[in-house]
Amino acid sequence: MKIVLIYSGGMDSTTLLYQLRAEGHDVRCLSIDYGQRHRRELDGAREICQALGVEQRVADLTSVAPLLAGSALTSADVEVPEGHYEAENMKLTVVPNRNMLMLSVAIAWAVSTKCDAVAYAAHGGDHAIYPDCRPEFIQAMNVAAGLCDWHTVQILAPYQQMDKGDIARIGTDLGVPYGKTWSCYKGLDKHCGRCGACNERREAFALAGVPDPTEYADVSTD
Amino acid sequence: MKIVLIYSGGMDSTTLLYQLRAEGHDVRCLSIDYGQRHRRELDGAREICQALGVEQRVADLTSVAPLLAGSALTSADVEVPEGHYEAENMKLTVVPNRNMLMLSVAIAWAVSTKCDAVAYAAHGGDHAIYPDCRPEFIQAMNVAAGLCDWHTVQILAPYQQMDKGDIARIGTDLGVPYGKTWSCYKGLDKHCGRCGACNERREAFALAGVPDPTEYADVSTD
Repeated sequence: MKIVLIYSGGMDSTTLLYQLRAEGHDVRCLSIDYGQRHRRELDGAREICQALGVEQRVADLTSVAPLLAGSALTSADVEVPEGHYEAENMKLTVVPNRNMLMLSVAIAWAVSTKCDAVAYAAHGGDHAIYPDCRPEFIQAMNVAAGLCDWHTVQILAPYQQMDKGDIARIGTDLGVPYGKTWSCYKGLDKHCGRCGACNERREAFALAGVPDPTEYADVSTD
Repeated sequence: MKIVLIYSGGMDSTTLLYQLRAEGHDVRCLSIDYGQRHRRELDGAREICQALGVEQRVADLTSVAPLLAGSALTSADVEVPEGHYEAENMKLTVVPNRNMLMLSVAIAWAVSTKCDAVAYAAHGGDHAIYPDCRPEFIQAMNVAAGLCDWHTVQILAPYQQMDKGDIARIGTDLGVPYGKTWSCYKGLDKHCGRCGACNERREAFALAGVPDPTEYADVSTD
């Protein structure tokens, strides 16, 4: 299949990039700059695409950021919460309608280049906090993607029932260079080790029982 | 209701703006610059919002335009076709996935400001050419809009079963200043009078049996 992958440069979408290519698909990557605090994830995305010889486009949606008020990921005045994804305060990291935005750009590109599908790496561990990673949302978008044009595009989200430990296991088998991927929401020099994304990243490698190549600023556990 | 209206500055969305306000809703407008050749429609949109004292935001999606190859509305190397919407060549004016893109930005803003609904002026006359104006697409997006966040937003498209003549009739009764609205896809000084959008505009006023205040460069009929 000819596929547009929504590619952030994080663990999950990098694993999906490697998996789709291993399955023999023709993949091109779309990365989105939506004014995220951790925009440095896009540097890793570019490097990995270049190393693989994969086409990558970056869509600049920073002008939309002022409409996404209230998220710690796009608003300088909202602090990134520390702790675990199960905690209520992690909802501060929800970016309103982020996945529909990204999917709509990806589907537009897929339609205009006659691709068969758009893939994204929503996973089961995201459901409790991020409503736009739930299977029912993915299904609704799949219906819409099949109707938005005379050329039909489908949505692939093969990790929607897996957790991040499963993903780390798949990626390790595929030789994903996790040291080059970025998760931390704070977007500083090193992974902070304390935000929700860092906690989830550390846990993923532990669950998978594989080495974590990440250098964290703080590796204490609460 | 508190509503985000997708507002192009054309006849249909201007009529919807007047109608929603007449019905007592609290309306704010979102206009989108997606690199359209007829970007001057946005000038009229701004003027009308200012005159009504309605909040308006313009989202800049021009960086997405290179991904929307092949449409006469966003590609300088594809000529705007002349003639009637029923003709096959009018499909050149389809912008891939335009409505999902616009809806996704509008829904994001609606979620972050706790609005109840997003409205857009898709109408029955669009169905044959624009797949993303069909009721089944609107319904799929309504389901997705209800799932993308813990705060639920609904999609309103009250003109989906009407034609543009019906809209011109409604708007004339509401005192819509149609002379300030813009339709022409060519985006020159005056409405060209010959592109699909101009033909449809002229036909709408004729069908409604109301005066057409538009100054066209060419008013001949084929």
